[in-house]
Amino acid sequence: MIKGAIFDVFGTVVDWRRGVAEGLRPILAEAGVGHDPWAIADAWRAEYQPGMEAVRAGRRGYVRLEVLHRENLDRALEGLGLGAQIDMPTREAMNRVWERLPPWPDSPAGLAAIRERVPVATCSNGSIAMMVRIARHAGLVWDAILGAEIAQGYKPDPAVYLATAGALGLRPQEVVMVAAHNGDLAAAAALGFQTAFVARPTEHGPSQTTDLAPSGPWTVAASDMIELARRLAP
Amino acid sequence: MIKGAIFDVFGTVVDWRRGVAEGLRPILAEAGVGHDPWAIADAWRAEYQPGMEAVRAGRRGYVRLEVLHRENLDRALEGLGLGAQIDMPTREAMNRVWERLPPWPDSPAGLAAIRERVPVATCSNGSIAMMVRIARHAGLVWDAILGAEIAQGYKPDPAVYLATAGALGLRPQEVVMVAAHNGDLAAAAALGFQTAFVARPTEHGPSQTTDLAPSGPWTVAASDMIELARRLAP
Repeated sequence: MIKGAIFDVFGTVVDWRRGVAEGLRPILAEAGVGHDPWAIADAWRAEYQPGMEAVRAGRRGYVRLEVLHRENLDRALEGLGLGAQIDMPTREAMNRVWERLPPWPDSPAGLAAIRERVPVATCSNGSIAMMVRIARHAGLVWDAILGAEIAQGYKPDPAVYLATAGALGLRPQEVVMVAAHNGDLAAAAALGFQTAFVARPTEHGPSQTTDLAPSGPWTVAASDMIELARRLAP
Repeated sequence: MIKGAIFDVFGTVVDWRRGVAEGLRPILAEAGVGHDPWAIADAWRAEYQPGMEAVRAGRRGYVRLEVLHRENLDRALEGLGLGAQIDMPTREAMNRVWERLPPWPDSPAGLAAIRERVPVATCSNGSIAMMVRIARHAGLVWDAILGAEIAQGYKPDPAVYLATAGALGLRPQEVVMVAAHNGDLAAAAALGFQTAFVARPTEHGPSQTTDLAPSGPWTVAASDMIELARRLAP
């Protein structure tokens, strides 16, 4: 019996790649930049883990993910040879596309069904402000926005999972961590959490090769959030 | 134009006195204690500000409100001469009545109407776990649970209001603080917040003498949360 469910968000609940690419398209058009927005989304996301690693490794203090995203964008554009073409106001507008990501089609209803039984909270690397804006845009209802910012760290730092369960007044054993990423679940499982894998085989596009299936002894695996809600029912 | 609304909860959104008294009645009956539960609720609440003051004054570090409530209960029962009659498991059960407080009748609909326009968050002295449980019990939907625990302090410490606006990515000037307590609004106004007084003239019972009307130049005053939603509309 679980008493709470906590969720990875980028990739698990919302389709960041489509949201970023489709959000960038009009901004790039406005700026007269002809580059493929999907390629920019992928290059931008490639800087995601390196950007957080500086905080995880203690080389810098916690800064919110929107700050890292903005820095990562500069690196991605430089790498794509677009550094000279895109001005600062355009980059600021690009950074805000992360606030307007679409949910996977099953996420709002699946999350609502799980929320009928237990509290649901984010355990994302996104900041509170980002998570609030994403949830309002995507039609998601959370009982609490927890994760990186309350822990002042980034997953898979154990502090993030533990602070999230702790804020709910629950022990890890009473909480299921939900993610489309085996690494996220491995980190949670090592702390005693229950684990739920939700397959998102096109998170990284049509030729995705990672996280296509559960790779560990997770408590539950499901093909989407609605199936997960059924699987978590008593 | 506001970009967010943050709310005091105890007294402003939920009727703590009725919830505590009615929640205590069956627990006291079970324990064979004949004392008036409303008197216990009032005696318990009388310890509320002194309990937080130790944290505000820096005499102890931040501890969650449920810890203070539990300590305050011991003092209240002692003061009422009930110290010897109520055992520890009963006291633990009594402490949990704070998780099951009823909303004022207008709160769920009024809050939902405000949430249609701007993000709504708690700025309460309650902990995250308490606020989550109260919201689920009372049928309230928040975009985020902020306030005391994320600031590791207690209102009217400025850090609580500022951390709440900051977590939403907003400046105080962009946020309205909603409360039934003039002191809470005075603290927020001093930091640049917009302010909304919602009258709760029976929060402390039928013979309440405080906070019957707005006592400062607040941005808005309303007789309930539904009127407030109307007054905040553009």
